[in-house]
Amino acid sequence: MSNWMKNLRRVEPYVPGEQPRSLEVVKLNTNENPYPPAPGVAEALHQMNTDTLRRYPAPDCGMLTAVLARRYGVAQNQVFVGVGSDDVLGMSFLTFFNSEKPILFPDISYAFYEVWADLLRIPYEKQPLDASLRLVREDYYKENGGIVFPNPNAPTSILEPLSFVEDIVSHNPDSVVIVDEAYIDFGGTSALPLIEKYDNLLVVQTFSKSRSLAGMRIGFALGSPALIQALNSVKNSYNSYTMSQAALETGTAALEDEAYFQETIGKITQTRQEAVQRLAALGFSGPAPMANFLFVTHESIPARELFAALREADIFVRYFDKPRIDNYLRITVGTPEQMEKLYTFLEDYMKH
Amino acid sequence: MSNWMKNLRRVEPYVPGEQPRSLEVVKLNTNENPYPPAPGVAEALHQMNTDTLRRYPAPDCGMLTAVLARRYGVAQNQVFVGVGSDDVLGMSFLTFFNSEKPILFPDISYAFYEVWADLLRIPYEKQPLDASLRLVREDYYKENGGIVFPNPNAPTSILEPLSFVEDIVSHNPDSVVIVDEAYIDFGGTSALPLIEKYDNLLVVQTFSKSRSLAGMRIGFALGSPALIQALNSVKNSYNSYTMSQAALETGTAALEDEAYFQETIGKITQTRQEAVQRLAALGFSGPAPMANFLFVTHESIPARELFAALREADIFVRYFDKPRIDNYLRITVGTPEQMEKLYTFLEDYMKH
Repeated sequence: MSNWMKNLRRVEPYVPGEQPRSLEVVKLNTNENPYPPAPGVAEALHQMNTDTLRRYPAPDCGMLTAVLARRYGVAQNQVFVGVGSDDVLGMSFLTFFNSEKPILFPDISYAFYEVWADLLRIPYEKQPLDASLRLVREDYYKENGGIVFPNPNAPTSILEPLSFVEDIVSHNPDSVVIVDEAYIDFGGTSALPLIEKYDNLLVVQTFSKSRSLAGMRIGFALGSPALIQALNSVKNSYNSYTMSQAALETGTAALEDEAYFQETIGKITQTRQEAVQRLAALGFSGPAPMANFLFVTHESIPARELFAALREADIFVRYFDKPRIDNYLRITVGTPEQMEKLYTFLEDYMKH
Repeated sequence: MSNWMKNLRRVEPYVPGEQPRSLEVVKLNTNENPYPPAPGVAEALHQMNTDTLRRYPAPDCGMLTAVLARRYGVAQNQVFVGVGSDDVLGMSFLTFFNSEKPILFPDISYAFYEVWADLLRIPYEKQPLDASLRLVREDYYKENGGIVFPNPNAPTSILEPLSFVEDIVSHNPDSVVIVDEAYIDFGGTSALPLIEKYDNLLVVQTFSKSRSLAGMRIGFALGSPALIQALNSVKNSYNSYTMSQAALETGTAALEDEAYFQETIGKITQTRQEAVQRLAALGFSGPAPMANFLFVTHESIPARELFAALREADIFVRYFDKPRIDNYLRITVGTPEQMEKLYTFLEDYMKH
């Protein structure tokens, strides 16, 4: 081994869900939106003056943060944007989690929290979910260097009420508390109103799920001006220009079409409701889903077996080979047509 | 002050050159390309199937790394791509510079090296340029935790020959050596051929300058499979999907038009050659420029005064208020028309 290899940062990277490029595949494995982005997105790209691409984009991303501020009723200095919510969360770990005390997050949760903590050498303590896969609020009362959890949680799809979030925030005036709301638009109540009351609360959301823009990489955070300023200082110390002109323009277009947004959410929650019933009829059960995916276990067939059989039939869902959840499947809510293919396959499979 | 503020990562961010949005301004301050990107870039965006944006892009960026590998005659596992060369360099600092020994870079150089080292708490020692603003190769023979320097250097625009780069690399088998070639396409010889011989050499380039795509945020690194694999592990531990679908498609289109690329480079080097003569006639001097900018000082008028006067006339150039270079201006090579406005203003100014 060469000597320079001794100084490599060694990490166990997050393994994202497979991204088969074939359009034949029924892709219910990465919680993408089954509907295209708002029509304004196509318009923005198709009419873009590409001559401007020779210039750097505005480093303050002002075009997009202005529209976000208006949409969410906050000041522009309460908005931060990044390359997907992963970039926003990664920057937040780097910015806020510099204590010697461990940060806290649920043991069954978004797998990236542990990966970021390892990468950035942040001490952490995972807090176990209870028997019904719920967060236990008292676990987050102990001394800590920061707190992060998704609401709704992933991969469980369980939503906690606003009072639960406020309870954790109010018990932690000395820590930054990050609520990862990647899936909040599918029926949840955002913690956004609390940022006026708690200057240590950061709410993180994304355009990848409810706004059908996973391919453009846009995430954002809302919080007190002090939190946002600290985030911007770190971001400007890493890369002045994280957001491409194309991301700024398509993000703005997506945000401006509120009717399309509501319609898409409506369709997905409708399909989700049907899915709960159809899957129950097939012997599946799981927590009440409040994200754009379901987390289900079957009364007799092991999840691992179902996962493999579905994959064989070009129906991709997600399976986590981890203690306590290794008999569950995470199934993204697709179009009614995609879901029908899933039900048909499962009905057929159950007969054998 | 709230207690959570004690755990903020405090940094002095890099301050990028101003980005006035007005098209009236003669903008020669951020080393952007004065010509638009290749026509294929407009075509790629204007014909893009925006329905695919609902999906995550391919996490391996295979579309773009394949074309880069072909263009630069390397294997695909020798190519890494990121959100501009700043992202590539930042990830490289995080991946490779984990020694207790200080990393080395020139004292007058790209200002971000110091900012990244501070942000990531990497020890460093700046090596002074000599009296003619050149790197001193022997300064990079001492024990170190890594080496990074731009070639051509910025803001001096001075190019070192390949033998100089190889000398530094060959003296440092135990360190990763990063050659930042953001400006290499404007007449320099890339260190790329050396990556087959030295598995510790990383060559970093960008689409922002020679390919007129600053607005899309695309940078890349070429090196041994071991270096690239280490970079990908860290990248996948931070953000699985850094490159948007739009960046992958426009980057590919830009790379495929070799004729346009050569033509643009030709025009810029031609204008640069004229600029040296025209500015000399006005009393300016400086190192022989080998990037898309000039670094000049005037025989009698202080640079600070000229900078302010130019700005007043809506001609933006860059001024660094730093020891040893505070009597220089960095002037990006613009179109002949933009440069004519600069000369006219200066001629007029000299008369007073």
